Amino acid sequence: MSSTTHKPTILSNLPPIFSMLHEAKTKAGLTFEQLAQKIGRDEWYVAAIFYGQAKPDKQDIERLSQSLDVRINYLDEGLGDNFFPHRGLGEFPPQDPVLYRLYEVLVVYGYPLKHMIHEKFGDGIMSAIDFEGHVDKIEDPKGDRE
Amino acid sequence: MSSTTHKPTILSNLPPIFSMLHEAKTKAGLTFEQLAQKIGRDEWYVAAIFYGQAKPDKQDIERLSQSLDVRINYLDEGLGDNFFPHRGLGEFPPQDPVLYRLYEVLVVYGYPLKHMIHEKFGDGIMSAIDFEGHVDKIEDPKGDRE
Amino acid sequence: MSSTTHKPTILSNLPPIFSMLHEAKTKAGLTFEQLAQKIGRDEWYVAAIFYGQAKPDKQDIERLSQSLDVRINYLDEGLGDNFFPHRGLGEFPPQDPVLYRLYEVLVVYGYPLKHMIHEKFGDGIMSAIDFEGHVDKIEDPKGDRE
Amino acid sequence: MSSTTHKPTILSNLPPIFSMLHEAKTKAGLTFEQLAQKIGRDEWYVAAIFYGQAKPDKQDIERLSQSLDVRINYLDEGLGDNFFPHRGLGEFPPQDPVLYRLYEVLVVYGYPLKHMIHEKFGDGIMSAIDFEGHVDKIEDPKGDRE
Amino acid sequence: MSSTTHKPTILSNLPPIFSMLHEAKTKAGLTFEQLAQKIGRDEWYVAAIFYGQAKPDKQDIERLSQSLDVRINYLDEGLGDNFFPHRGLGEFPPQDPVLYRLYEVLVVYGYPLKHMIHEKFGDGIMSAIDFEGHVDKIEDPKGDRE
Amino acid sequence: MSSTTHKPTILSNLPPIFSMLHEAKTKAGLTFEQLAQKIGRDEWYVAAIFYGQAKPDKQDIERLSQSLDVRINYLDEGLGDNFFPHRGLGEFPPQDPVLYRLYEVLVVYGYPLKHMIHEKFGDGIMSAIDFEGHVDKIEDPKGDRE
Amino acid sequence: MSSTTHKPTILSNLPPIFSMLHEAKTKAGLTFEQLAQKIGRDEWYVAAIFYGQAKPDKQDIERLSQSLDVRINYLDEGLGDNFFPHRGLGEFPPQDPVLYRLYEVLVVYGYPLKHMIHEKFGDGIMSAIDFEGHVDKIEDPKGDRE
Amino acid sequence: MSSTTHKPTILSNLPPIFSMLHEAKTKAGLTFEQLAQKIGRDEWYVAAIFYGQAKPDKQDIERLSQSLDVRINYLDEGLGDNFFPHRGLGEFPPQDPVLYRLYEVLVVYGYPLKHMIHEKFGDGIMSAIDFEGHVDKIEDPKGDRE
Amino acid sequence: MSSTTHKPTILSNLPPIFSMLHEAKTKAGLTFEQLAQKIGRDEWYVAAIFYGQAKPDKQDIERLSQSLDVRINYLDEGLGDNFFPHRGLGEFPPQDPVLYRLYEVLVVYGYPLKHMIHEKFGDGIMSAIDFEGHVDKIEDPKGDRE
Amino acid sequence: MSSTTHKPTILSNLPPIFSMLHEAKTKAGLTFEQLAQKIGRDEWYVAAIFYGQAKPDKQDIERLSQSLDVRINYLDEGLGDNFFPHRGLGEFPPQDPVLYRLYEVLVVYGYPLKHMIHEKFGDGIMSAIDFEGHVDKIEDPKGDRE
Repeated sequence: MSSTTHKPTILSNLPPIFSMLHEAKTKAGLTFEQLAQKIGRDEWYVAAIFYGQAKPDKQDIERLSQSLDVRINYLDEGLGDNFFPHRGLGEFPPQDPVLYRLYEVLVVYGYPLKHMIHEKFGDGIMSAIDFEGHVDKIEDPKGDRE
Repeated sequence: MSSTTHKPTILSNLPPIFSMLHEAKTKAGLTFEQLAQKIGRDEWYVAAIFYGQAKPDKQDIERLSQSLDVRINYLDEGLGDNFFPHRGLGEFPPQDPVLYRLYEVLVVYGYPLKHMIHEKFGDGIMSAIDFEGHVDKIEDPKGDRE
Repeated sequence: MSSTTHKPTILSNLPPIFSMLHEAKTKAGLTFEQLAQKIGRDEWYVAAIFYGQAKPDKQDIERLSQSLDVRINYLDEGLGDNFFPHRGLGEFPPQDPVLYRLYEVLVVYGYPLKHMIHEKFGDGIMSAIDFEGHVDKIEDPKGDRE
Repeated sequence: MSSTTHKPTILSNLPPIFSMLHEAKTKAGLTFEQLAQKIGRDEWYVAAIFYGQAKPDKQDIERLSQSLDVRINYLDEGLGDNFFPHRGLGEFPPQDPVLYRLYEVLVVYGYPLKHMIHEKFGDGIMSAIDFEGHVDKIEDPKGDRE
Repeated sequence: MSSTTHKPTILSNLPPIFSMLHEAKTKAGLTFEQLAQKIGRDEWYVAAIFYGQAKPDKQDIERLSQSLDVRINYLDEGLGDNFFPHRGLGEFPPQDPVLYRLYEVLVVYGYPLKHMIHEKFGDGIMSAIDFEGHVDKIEDPKGDRE
Repeated sequence: MSSTTHKPTILSNLPPIFSMLHEAKTKAGLTFEQLAQKIGRDEWYVAAIFYGQAKPDKQDIERLSQSLDVRINYLDEGLGDNFFPHRGLGEFPPQDPVLYRLYEVLVVYGYPLKHMIHEKFGDGIMSAIDFEGHVDKIEDPKGDRE
Repeated sequence: MSSTTHKPTILSNLPPIFSMLHEAKTKAGLTFEQLAQKIGRDEWYVAAIFYGQAKPDKQDIERLSQSLDVRINYLDEGLGDNFFPHRGLGEFPPQDPVLYRLYEVLVVYGYPLKHMIHEKFGDGIMSAIDFEGHVDKIEDPKGDRE
Repeated sequence: MSSTTHKPTILSNLPPIFSMLHEAKTKAGLTFEQLAQKIGRDEWYVAAIFYGQAKPDKQDIERLSQSLDVRINYLDEGLGDNFFPHRGLGEFPPQDPVLYRLYEVLVVYGYPLKHMIHEKFGDGIMSAIDFEGHVDKIEDPKGDRE
Repeated sequence: MSSTTHKPTILSNLPPIFSMLHEAKTKAGLTFEQLAQKIGRDEWYVAAIFYGQAKPDKQDIERLSQSLDVRINYLDEGLGDNFFPHRGLGEFPPQDPVLYRLYEVLVVYGYPLKHMIHEKFGDGIMSAIDFEGHVDKIEDPKGDRE
Repeated sequence: MSSTTHKPTILSNLPPIFSMLHEAKTKAGLTFEQLAQKIGRDEWYVAAIFYGQAKPDKQDIERLSQSLDVRINYLDEGLGDNFFPHRGLGEFPPQDPVLYRLYEVLVVYGYPLKHMIHEKFGDGIMSAIDFEGHVDKIEDPKGDRE
């Protein structure tokens, strides 16, 4: 199995530990959601680890090592004490339509959103420290767009 | 009451109908949420109308006229048949911290997010047509940050 | 009727003749398609005149004057011999979703498109001189997205 | 045959599976139109696959493997379940005249176009999900420009 | 006394309440430090109010009104309940040398700084909510640079 | 121990001497603060050396060689007489939240800050020559944000 | 005759003397070529004066005054001793197709052109001081593109 | 004498005191060099005052008032205690050829220059505090370029 | 002869066929003008081929092969049927003074030029299809600038 | 002696001949000033050669070969007849403080400077052809800033 063919381009800008993680996950046939359940963590957080945007703690590294069958010293060296995430990836504004749609929500609704936040919470900012995100499939009563 | 002192700067880049709407809302002492309940619409959608990012239909205009005590022909002329939203406001990346925090979520979590979307929905895009947004106050068990 | 409330923002960056044209068209209750039929011209071309992106000839000016009930010397002065279009309006990349979707087609399909053009026409360029565009409503067998 | 000399520069920014596809297509002596007929797909869609901008399904991969004489497990690994397109290629605004001419249509006619769309379809956006494109040679009664 | 001659250019991009505040402060002959002591607030915070970057509460407004001899309803209307700061002013990177020097510290020492923060605090971010700043004159043993 | 896995991406844009320094520091298990004490220098300054933003003198090089167990001629060749720092690293505005928060302080408080500096020091600039920085942990009476 | 309707937008960014010149030229019914012959100057140079990109000398001002029937003291005040051109107008890259085509020649042929210049003139630069330009109609044996 | 016709465009972005200064200087028929001699200051410094880039002290203001016949309270109000320069004007890179030539020297010779500075002064920076500039006419033995 | 030392940097961004062409031309000791005469083509066109900006036809390839002593199958593979130029090279605005001078002509004279073109040719655009360029040495009666 | 450790980053973007020159100069222990004296040239000009920004003539190459003990055919191949400088290096605005200080002089004093040049030389430009630069150490009566 060639490691160069199936990794998304962004990975080539990250240290090789991340390509290794993606390959191991592919081999193990796990989605982020399944992997998250296995290691007892949030799906969003696990996906962030795989792109170098979150820092796993000692227990995360042990469980990733077991779930993905990767030698723990590889993970320790690349994601352990000496690793700290340098956050922010790739280009902005994003050209990919999936990412652009999310960006567009801010471009179009940014001011109304700020105004609503002001009315509900007063003058303040959303704490990036307490940020939590989820991706859920919500059935649209109109059905999917095929 | 001087109309120039208390309108946020972005309004000065929009046609005067929008400043008039904001002033009427201030006078009526209504939040977007209260106004939305009065006219039977989504709060997000009502806030978007106030910044020229959504187009009210005939019934919306009638109810806005009643709720805000603004003459209907003013609203009709500015927001009626001949009006169509030119969407997208102000600067990007945003300098205001409230908006930047939301933008930062995409900068940091864009790739993991796309990967999760791919795993859950396959190769597709979020339809901007079916987009719905809400701003809710969710109690953080750790409490607010004072 | 106040002339400032219902004109799209882009018009405020153009000489006043264009706002006058839009107001007259609104008053006459004509769409670009109807106006185009009245003056015997392409709809796209007529819409371009209204944004200063095309130059009407003498006959166009006469017929616009009649169809819109605008004094011909106003049109002559603003759109006649001494007028030449300075083409290109507003911001790019566009923030408005309608325009962005068209732009995105190029961002995503630009290379495949160039390759197909190469295979069909050899190494060449589309002549901007012979460019013609049309906006037609084509029924999607899947129906509209409500 | 050296694989580095005849591939357009953009391919060197994509995973090697795409260079392999282009070389196989060159060897097979097929245009996108011919290949599209062989695999029962739209020409635009096939060209998009060759630049990583569309995702082939299982049947597409089988037929590409047969038509281009490429081992199916190569295609499976690079374009199969673990592949998802990261869309958007290269620089914008484009410097290449073929692509710039298309971009220029939007720069010059963007606002008139939006206005026409508004008049015909109301306030809405073109669904990128339902997008279909074609490149056809239409005879210009004035003849080609030699 | 003409109000247009002596206000820094940035004020002309802010609502007129802020020019009024600066003029009143000039007339009262107070520095931010003196004004801060009078109203029982941090100097940094008071300066931020004068540029629309912080929101005074009810007591601040009362004390500002007394200290600067400005009618309270003017301040209430412009800085009260309906006001919320849209933060972020002017150009970046800054051209003014005073601001550029501060910016340059980040350009040059950004990575070392992040690394030190990581070593001391682990992977985290400085909370913008708890941010406090002070400008103090510290005697340089080498003396001032005349 | 592979030298490619655990170095932050920015190091790959710097000459290899800096990766070697980081690896030696990791091996020695020293923080910048500890290393700074060992060589009798400021922590900020030592961190800056490790990212090529400051130039060590002869004594610094000797002590770094001893503390990190690196052969002195390697350090001499890479950081000695023929080396001069080309300052300024990476992208601006920074995408990483730790760096962005610091940048944001300037975006939001730049003008008030300049005004306070003016009131305290008159019209002048902070001398970059005399710049000194420190990173200290100050206990927040409200406690840390977990 | 309203002076605001028929002046190209760029003029509104220049001091009013230039709008006055354009109006006088329109009234006199002269092209730049005809005006250039009247005042004994190069056409390119005269057109540059009308956009504030060249500085007329005393004799030019006298002759412009006579040819365009403008009072000489107006021209003296605006274009005389105290005037010096601040060169460079409008946006770049240009969006207008006429200007973009010229720009594109450089984008596409810049390197070949520099190489040819090198082969013919050695390593040097075109002197902007000795620059002369002409716009001539050269018959294309293939005829015009209608 | 109309005050709008002969002031360079940049002045319209500065407070009106600066236009008043330029007009007074024009009326007095003085060059910066002559004015500098009259008030006992450096020519460069005086020119900088006229564009809001330097701050005159009390004596400068008195002498400017006498030399230019401007009422001292105008100057005091606009340039006195409450004035502090916000430095940095206009666009960069500059489009005007005079300014671009100076900028180009840095673009082309920046690295060699830094290297020479390093060899002569060691690792350091030019102090902007001690900066002094002069514009002198030096005879070129080859003569002027006519 | 090392192929890396004497090729201009831009070539390293193009497929290797172009470096090979430049080396063969250097070896043959021919200028573009001489080579153009040998193969019966325009000098500008030949130089464009050498930078991938024009596509040679079959006869051009044969004659290039003979004149430069390069095996025809190399040229066929790299510049033949499967090659299509992706036009546009390098950075804009250009930093190199030779290219910048040409660019500056457009920055300074763009509007006057468009106005002259309008007066001579009406509202139209220069056809990029019919574009022809030449580089000729014209004796300046004032002599060269040594 | 490893050639990768001690070359400034900018050299890695230039052909290898320039790294070779820098290494030879380091080995010979010469400053640009000393080397300039050896080969009878201006220091500025010699430094420019070392960064590919100036083109040495035949005699320069001979003398460089002797002074630096580099084989002449290496220099001939890389800097001889087939070499022509592509001028302009690296990023702008520069992040390095040494270069930024020089850039800042233009940002702050650009307009006053242009005005002084206008008063002394009339409307003209500094000829880049006749440009000469020098770096001299001038004693500041206030002493150095330690």
